[in-house]
Amino acid sequence: MDPAVQPPPTLPSASQHGTLGAGQSEAFAAIEGDPNNQVYVAERQGRVVGTFQLTFIRQLSYGGCLVAQVESVHVHSSQRSHGIGRVMMEYAIAEARRRGALRIQLTSNVRRTRAHEFYERLGFRASHKGMKLYLR
Amino acid sequence: MDPAVQPPPTLPSASQHGTLGAGQSEAFAAIEGDPNNQVYVAERQGRVVGTFQLTFIRQLSYGGCLVAQVESVHVHSSQRSHGIGRVMMEYAIAEARRRGALRIQLTSNVRRTRAHEFYERLGFRASHKGMKLYLR
Repeated sequence: MDPAVQPPPTLPSASQHGTLGAGQSEAFAAIEGDPNNQVYVAERQGRVVGTFQLTFIRQLSYGGCLVAQVESVHVHSSQRSHGIGRVMMEYAIAEARRRGALRIQLTSNVRRTRAHEFYERLGFRASHKGMKLYLR
Repeated sequence: MDPAVQPPPTLPSASQHGTLGAGQSEAFAAIEGDPNNQVYVAERQGRVVGTFQLTFIRQLSYGGCLVAQVESVHVHSSQRSHGIGRVMMEYAIAEARRRGALRIQLTSNVRRTRAHEFYERLGFRASHKGMKLYLR
């Protein structure tokens, strides 16, 4: 059975699946209050087995395009290779299309070659370097 | 003289520097109304010579961290190699620190090796692949 992907309806509901620290609770509230930012969970048999975040960034280029950015893709370690990541990313792509995004994008650690192949099978192209600078 | 980096104060002021189409005007208004999304311009001698966009994405990971994302970095073709990109990116890094971001990130086309060296000099590391899927 494919897992169902959905936004967690409320903080109390989502927090049933685990413990949120104070910083996370504030972050959850901020994300819930932002129409361009959403955390999704994948559930299978009533259990959260995966999560990702989808953020929409409005830009001036290409006539004021919308860019969909995927962050924080995680599948529970006991649930890998069951197609959960595929279902989640197909959901993200469909949601990006529904919102009229020009493109959907993400970064994946250079060491995660199997993840790159996974994203390439979904149509992503590794056209860019993902450059990061940690500030603390 | 180093260029001054600043958010364009209003749409009419910014549009003095060029013509915005309808889609861009709507996008500009949406960006101006979003406290997590800002377009900056670099001015030298009263002239816009560069621009970039800085978006802050609140996440649940790392205790509810904030991620600063740079997009749409452009320097006017007549003004390259004058340090304008450096001033803009130093401004972006300082703004990300001021907001308490855990990291600042961007993607750069794999063909732009000089740009990668530029970002590495600023402290960025090409730790990830930047994967994109165009939807139209």
